[in-house]
Amino acid sequence: MADALQTPLLDTVDTPSDLRTLRPEQLRQLADELRQETIAAVGVTGGHLGSGLGVVELTVAIHYVFDTPRDRLIWDVGHQCYPHKILTGRRDRIRTLRQGGGLSGFTKRSESEYDPFGAAHSSTSISAALGFATANKLTGAPGKAIAVIGDGAMSAGMAYEAMNNAEAAGNRLVVILNDNDMSIAPPVGGLSAYLSRIVSSREFLGVRELMKKFARRLPRPFHTAARKTDEYARGMTMGGTLFEELGFYYVGPIDGHNLEHLIPVLENVRDAEEGPILIHVVTKKGKGYAPAEQSADKYHGVQKFDVITGTQAKAPPGPPAYQNVFGDALARAADADPRICAITAAMPSGTGLDRFAAAHPDRFFDVGIAEQHAVTFAAGLAAQGMRPFCAIYSTFLQRAYDQVVHDVAIQNLPVRFAIDRAGLVGADGATHAGSFDVTYLATLPNFVVMAPADEAELVHMVHTCAEYDDGPIAVRYPRGGGTGVALPAVPERLEIGKGRIVREGKSVAILSLGTRLGEALKAAEVLEARGLSTTVADLRFAKPLDEALIRRLLTSHEVAVTIEENAVGGLGAHVLTMASDAGLTDAGLKIRTLRLPDRFQDQDKPEVQYAEAGLDADAIVATVLSALRYNEAGVIARA
Amino acid sequence: MADALQTPLLDTVDTPSDLRTLRPEQLRQLADELRQETIAAVGVTGGHLGSGLGVVELTVAIHYVFDTPRDRLIWDVGHQCYPHKILTGRRDRIRTLRQGGGLSGFTKRSESEYDPFGAAHSSTSISAALGFATANKLTGAPGKAIAVIGDGAMSAGMAYEAMNNAEAAGNRLVVILNDNDMSIAPPVGGLSAYLSRIVSSREFLGVRELMKKFARRLPRPFHTAARKTDEYARGMTMGGTLFEELGFYYVGPIDGHNLEHLIPVLENVRDAEEGPILIHVVTKKGKGYAPAEQSADKYHGVQKFDVITGTQAKAPPGPPAYQNVFGDALARAADADPRICAITAAMPSGTGLDRFAAAHPDRFFDVGIAEQHAVTFAAGLAAQGMRPFCAIYSTFLQRAYDQVVHDVAIQNLPVRFAIDRAGLVGADGATHAGSFDVTYLATLPNFVVMAPADEAELVHMVHTCAEYDDGPIAVRYPRGGGTGVALPAVPERLEIGKGRIVREGKSVAILSLGTRLGEALKAAEVLEARGLSTTVADLRFAKPLDEALIRRLLTSHEVAVTIEENAVGGLGAHVLTMASDAGLTDAGLKIRTLRLPDRFQDQDKPEVQYAEAGLDADAIVATVLSALRYNEAGVIARA
Repeated sequence: MADALQTPLLDTVDTPSDLRTLRPEQLRQLADELRQETIAAVGVTGGHLGSGLGVVELTVAIHYVFDTPRDRLIWDVGHQCYPHKILTGRRDRIRTLRQGGGLSGFTKRSESEYDPFGAAHSSTSISAALGFATANKLTGAPGKAIAVIGDGAMSAGMAYEAMNNAEAAGNRLVVILNDNDMSIAPPVGGLSAYLSRIVSSREFLGVRELMKKFARRLPRPFHTAARKTDEYARGMTMGGTLFEELGFYYVGPIDGHNLEHLIPVLENVRDAEEGPILIHVVTKKGKGYAPAEQSADKYHGVQKFDVITGTQAKAPPGPPAYQNVFGDALARAADADPRICAITAAMPSGTGLDRFAAAHPDRFFDVGIAEQHAVTFAAGLAAQGMRPFCAIYSTFLQRAYDQVVHDVAIQNLPVRFAIDRAGLVGADGATHAGSFDVTYLATLPNFVVMAPADEAELVHMVHTCAEYDDGPIAVRYPRGGGTGVALPAVPERLEIGKGRIVREGKSVAILSLGTRLGEALKAAEVLEARGLSTTVADLRFAKPLDEALIRRLLTSHEVAVTIEENAVGGLGAHVLTMASDAGLTDAGLKIRTLRLPDRFQDQDKPEVQYAEAGLDADAIVATVLSALRYNEAGVIARA
Repeated sequence: MADALQTPLLDTVDTPSDLRTLRPEQLRQLADELRQETIAAVGVTGGHLGSGLGVVELTVAIHYVFDTPRDRLIWDVGHQCYPHKILTGRRDRIRTLRQGGGLSGFTKRSESEYDPFGAAHSSTSISAALGFATANKLTGAPGKAIAVIGDGAMSAGMAYEAMNNAEAAGNRLVVILNDNDMSIAPPVGGLSAYLSRIVSSREFLGVRELMKKFARRLPRPFHTAARKTDEYARGMTMGGTLFEELGFYYVGPIDGHNLEHLIPVLENVRDAEEGPILIHVVTKKGKGYAPAEQSADKYHGVQKFDVITGTQAKAPPGPPAYQNVFGDALARAADADPRICAITAAMPSGTGLDRFAAAHPDRFFDVGIAEQHAVTFAAGLAAQGMRPFCAIYSTFLQRAYDQVVHDVAIQNLPVRFAIDRAGLVGADGATHAGSFDVTYLATLPNFVVMAPADEAELVHMVHTCAEYDDGPIAVRYPRGGGTGVALPAVPERLEIGKGRIVREGKSVAILSLGTRLGEALKAAEVLEARGLSTTVADLRFAKPLDEALIRRLLTSHEVAVTIEENAVGGLGAHVLTMASDAGLTDAGLKIRTLRLPDRFQDQDKPEVQYAEAGLDADAIVATVLSALRYNEAGVIARA
């Protein structure tokens, strides 16, 4: 392969079938080569590194012991799957990871038969694996389902819901708890503390103890005189581990980097006639790469880097990221207002709340990967007079939609939602895009939904949220850097439901929500050059709409175009609905709504994604010209 | 009060302050009278009965010991809150429960300061209570938060997420686990089995043991030499209960109908300086009313009934309910197709799947209150070649929105969603209305969204779902009885994205989605009588739209009206978006979209709710006439 990297054994392994021809004593070398190849590839592409390095031995061991792809291997979240991709026929494309047209940074069904279930959001793997196992049980097909899930992902409710339902799958289900005491941030909560107590109070099982344990705890039929014995074996007589209480056989803790322990354990689990089995494997995030091991976040997500030194490519200097503008603005607001609290679901730095936490640790709450709890907890805080901000990425807020509806909107409680990663997100692809929040929030009574056009507007909107006590309010903003405008020294409280005119014209009106405003202004320049006098409005609010402004713009221009970074049902749909309610379409209304397309977009550079989506200046211009041409032969001549 | 009921002691208690003036030995009589009053009230109104009867003593004891409303009492789900309402100033209105303008059948913030947090969906109480407790901790305000949660509700992921975060609340948080081994249906899963093992393996704690336990397990500061002792006290050295492992002090099990046990336990918990504390109380659903105790569902939800005999008023005979038409149709489909599976989240009879379960028990999965798991489990089944139907009420599917997006839509997996209780639901009110599903599903790429106009159409749509393997597909239908049409002997496979013309006219086009079709046809008659020739189309599909049909209708009629039982962003928004994309509004398009209003509607008779919402024949007629009048002076004369 590339570089000066020597991987003689790995070079002989294209798929797990090749892997299974190796002798057990060769696996250590294979794992070492796989680790080096993973580091080299991510050095070129950037991406998730620490998680993959932590499961190199586990990846080798699972594919060695189980009959993938017949046995279904499901990596929770999926950001640890690069070594898996290398071993499953994708090594030739591993340096295209997260690039346009390249391999996804997560597992993906369309990419390989070795990816039976795509992932990217956390904590879905046990539910999915149960589905596979149950289907096989019903059809009598052979094959097991193996979920590999991190300790952080175990804090999410859906993992618990799945564990609560696992017993029926029997030995077709294997759950491997990959306990690295670290998700993106250090994990929080009772479960995490519990796992630490297990690990610290027990020694790793050696091979001899493991075999004894299997003989004792996983009785073959000839051991199982009756169901009672089985219950006893599972520790169900009270006092087993939490996993045993929920119906699993528990095996562990096991050193997840020791292949001599992993292989025989997995072989026993594979052949066990009882189940489901949970294997508690302890690993080190970033294992085997000193720069990663020594870094606080274990190189969770990295830029391209120099493999020898670990030095990451610096992001080009530029305006501050929206997340940090948000974190700073909220921290400042909280200096003056002791009622302001901030809540994140395991994303302290991704949301910029690390800045809030440093200033106000007592009012900062990282609840773990637990968006549902985060929202209802915030609702409780609001009901008792606090001013909570729930900072959750757009795509992850989907996890708490019912709590948003039932606990916040119906009760009209003033919970503030700071929704980061709204719109397209580049390299993370479709699973992380925040494409639907305007639609799913603006349909709810009582909600205020805002989007800033730039980072200065975001500062005003954070302040507006803080001061607004009349009900739920949300501000949604994109991934990445702002536009470079100066930040206001003193934030303003915006009037709810009022937009602003950014430039005034006569023929064309562009109604923008959010950070596509820059493209709208570029389009206006192009249109002006063609003789089309163009108004650009920054609507600021998707709900409530600025009806007076919109009505004026629609009725006083030849054509109006709305633009938003959201799928159908959002701003454009609300503007059309208002226009039709008011009878504005009756006598003719030339209006077009630009929005995200009705398909999931794969990862790529953001500018490529915007062009694909038809959400850039070119698309605005084309839409305007096409609309004007539609019934008027004269327009082309005029342009 | 009403009837021949004698309630001399209860008559002296209007609020918990009055209750607290009683001597402990009077509480038994008070509880008995409260139980009789609850039975008498529900006999008049119908509603939830079994759950309330199970917590009569608990209700008395909590209000007696704790300082409500300063101490915040949060009833999970809230259908057990009738005795609570009687004791908290609402006895005079208790016979208006669930009626229009009357008391809600759930807790509701706007109704009383004793309802600090509204509920109706399950499993929110611990998160909310943590919010209250944390706010008090931050502001130094006195007051505890008490969540009362059933064992069934504990199977939901959000309850676990909250427990995982509870430790920080300390002694301000009290969780009372009301274990009646029964939610609406018998509970399922590992946790339920675990609770049963606790209860069957331990004796109820008597007063003497309780006091010992408190002395030992809830050490006051003078007992707590160090944090280690505290950890020891919590059972954290491995082998405590699951709740202890997550950071709670566990007390129990306790007989929840024995006031002599409940009162001292609650007093100790109130005064404990450590926490959070979980009290495991065992109760009997339907307790103290023989007809309820003897009924399989413990009179979970009842019609009006005769208090002496327990005989419930028969619902007037009528067409079969949509849920049963669905259940029968799916069971028949599964006779012929071994790949069809059915999944419910604790609603076997409410979804009609009890009929499926009887015929195909091996392919029926009740996962408990665990909608997130239900959807991803279904996605796993689909990925392994099965044909899963996920039957979840519209409002509860909100719990699994991310799973719908991330695990189903993005992967384009053929999971079938049978969405009952779509639209307004009558007596259950805003929390149970299914107002948003067309909006939140039709915005997703890959999704097919259908709604039947009547129960015969539902049969066709179930068949269409079963046969459709190209991606996710949903059929949404209302609560209650169908229209009485004959059911088809052989179901048809509908063409995806094709609507049908039900009556053909020339001036007015009504585009209906779902069961408002009957009102559309009534409106057409009225309009015809006024000289307005009216077309009525049953669109069948909200996504994909029948673009050819819609285009023809919009361009060949003077006015078009869409109607749907869904909030803004649904069918009407999609039709407007399509029309605007196609330039149909450019030269004038008279179109109106009837939809649910932008407010949450309280409980009432369905016909009253429809009139309020503007979704009946009168509203259609008024909208058409108003639209025609808008720019045309001649229309009124013509009418």
